[in-house]
Amino acid sequence: MGPKFLRPLTAPDAEKGQAVQFGLDNPLTLDSGRTLAPWTLAYMTYGALNAARSNAVLVCHALTGDQFVASAHPVTGKPGWWETMVGPGKPIDTSRFFVICANVVGGCMGSSGPAEIDPATGEPYGLSFPLVTVRDMVRAQAMLRDALGIEKLLCVTGGSMGGMQVLQWAASYPDRVISAIPIACAARHSAQNIAFHEVGRQAIMADPDWHGGAYQLQGTQPSKGLAVARMAAHITYLSEAALQRKFGRNLQSRNGISFAFAPDFQVESYLHHQGMTFVDRFDANSYLYITRAMDYFDLAADYGGVLAEAFRGCKTRFCLISFTSDWLFPTVENKRVAHALNAAAATVSFVEIDTDRGHDAFLLDEPEMFATVRGFLNVVAATQGVA
Amino acid sequence: MGPKFLRPLTAPDAEKGQAVQFGLDNPLTLDSGRTLAPWTLAYMTYGALNAARSNAVLVCHALTGDQFVASAHPVTGKPGWWETMVGPGKPIDTSRFFVICANVVGGCMGSSGPAEIDPATGEPYGLSFPLVTVRDMVRAQAMLRDALGIEKLLCVTGGSMGGMQVLQWAASYPDRVISAIPIACAARHSAQNIAFHEVGRQAIMADPDWHGGAYQLQGTQPSKGLAVARMAAHITYLSEAALQRKFGRNLQSRNGISFAFAPDFQVESYLHHQGMTFVDRFDANSYLYITRAMDYFDLAADYGGVLAEAFRGCKTRFCLISFTSDWLFPTVENKRVAHALNAAAATVSFVEIDTDRGHDAFLLDEPEMFATVRGFLNVVAATQGVA
Repeated sequence: MGPKFLRPLTAPDAEKGQAVQFGLDNPLTLDSGRTLAPWTLAYMTYGALNAARSNAVLVCHALTGDQFVASAHPVTGKPGWWETMVGPGKPIDTSRFFVICANVVGGCMGSSGPAEIDPATGEPYGLSFPLVTVRDMVRAQAMLRDALGIEKLLCVTGGSMGGMQVLQWAASYPDRVISAIPIACAARHSAQNIAFHEVGRQAIMADPDWHGGAYQLQGTQPSKGLAVARMAAHITYLSEAALQRKFGRNLQSRNGISFAFAPDFQVESYLHHQGMTFVDRFDANSYLYITRAMDYFDLAADYGGVLAEAFRGCKTRFCLISFTSDWLFPTVENKRVAHALNAAAATVSFVEIDTDRGHDAFLLDEPEMFATVRGFLNVVAATQGVA
Repeated sequence: MGPKFLRPLTAPDAEKGQAVQFGLDNPLTLDSGRTLAPWTLAYMTYGALNAARSNAVLVCHALTGDQFVASAHPVTGKPGWWETMVGPGKPIDTSRFFVICANVVGGCMGSSGPAEIDPATGEPYGLSFPLVTVRDMVRAQAMLRDALGIEKLLCVTGGSMGGMQVLQWAASYPDRVISAIPIACAARHSAQNIAFHEVGRQAIMADPDWHGGAYQLQGTQPSKGLAVARMAAHITYLSEAALQRKFGRNLQSRNGISFAFAPDFQVESYLHHQGMTFVDRFDANSYLYITRAMDYFDLAADYGGVLAEAFRGCKTRFCLISFTSDWLFPTVENKRVAHALNAAAATVSFVEIDTDRGHDAFLLDEPEMFATVRGFLNVVAATQGVA
């Protein structure tokens, strides 16, 4: 018995996307040794799969992203998180390519995750949900790809944790990924990044409304802790230069500083806004799970500590993109990947884009990134006879 | 009626230090427009004031520092925070110099601050304590200097917020500061630094044990929130390179990752330790007050936005020190100060020390810093006839 599509593939629910349910006979085997069955993967598609099934582009989302790449988010109503990149006539052109994006396993937008109901108990998983890794996320997406009947992906792309998944895709399924565009990422999470994630997790777990992860049963939500986690993380997504340019020491009020603890500076109000809007759309436990997955990511570790071995014999064409002011996944980490790919004799081009916008640049209007992705995909599509 | 020395100057309590109480006739006038009276400044001295009263060196402490520069901390029992720098035969040689260090106003080691008893109510101040600025801290120390009968300070030095105070000292009292060594600081707090501070404050204020700042009355302490604040801040005190060198992705256990949320990585345990030990020695409200003072610091703002004007006509000799890997107060901020001093025709030398230890380098064993301070103080002492 194959997986069950919860919403028909041919007539997707434009708002809520699609979902495929894998039954007891299609368990997801996790790196932890545990299995998940039944389990669900929620996803969106844009454009049409061609007759040769050769025009599929998989987009992998970042920590707080979701499957709504190029259409409105059903909770916030805001545009898709990569509408500048994906759509008709956009660099990832949905009038040519069939774009797939799945909510990662462990996420909170319909895929199996800690906020979903555990079919074994009828209650939310909470912390009983098994920990997942980036490789588990990719393994889950590979099962979706099979369910969709796609042999090879024309391209896998994504930024940040999405880029980690891209690297894992090329390592795990070298014969089924024609090309890969990992953006603003690394082959391993650094000590500093683990440290920032741990601060966020501690902020969440310190919130008494977290209730050991069982807050859904208590009818609460650790909103304050999650907001603090988001605020701390958000600083790392920007650059000092961008913060200086956007906010500097500008005050909220023309009357000067208040000599109080309410936000005096615009940068404080901006951070508060980031924290408050985040808790409306994201599950605190999912934040714990996905940050942990990123921390655990160390691609070389699975290959005797030699990153090049992860790509040995890999036929995938790579296009790496990094940003000069990204201090979360600095260019040096992206270069490590490029060096490993070179050492593995893979085909790789590497573009470092000059911008002061920090890590978040991959989500923003960056013409050089758009031109790079568009040009690279044109070449790759031509080699595969994709119109 | 002059200020009252709570412990005799000639026989200091080696453990708890000394304190001077300023009465109702000696109010501390604050930048907020409020006044503090009576009020107390707790301090330590090391070495002996010479007959000419010309060998006094004032050390200003950083955000979480205190007056225990060169002697054991009375709560933790740990060595003074700058024992590598201050002591007999050390770069700031207490066999030559009379070293003074006061707990800043707003602090929690005996000086008037939110954790102290408000004499007007008999209860802890909590948030009724007035907000203070770096200039207020300096103003308070100037009153201590006067109470000690010292006309001119041979040198004022300190790192981080201590360095901010040094700059303020030179600007506020140009005729009474012979020399100044601001280390790893800036003439204004950046947007990014304000943002990190606000995350810490939000973590504290989100803790239900904070009780709107009145936790002393409730018999609680917002330990979890304060620990999160400390953990986030601590990351900014180090550098990515130092974290990589010290911890990398090293695990706590030889059995590999746990697939759970307990600390798997050594860097996580290290951060937890930093958070837990901090809450034993520091008051959460003081953390709010002092971070706010740093955020408010913008020396140029008091001089029409032109930093050089803060030092116009200043006779103080400056020695600026920064560290290559300090991303909290990067060299560029220190250079801004150097440029302003040059523009004001002040005497200034500037040393950037190559280290991967980040902002915390100023507290660590940095031979080039020691040699710089020692050499500079030798020259300054010679010009003043100090043996």
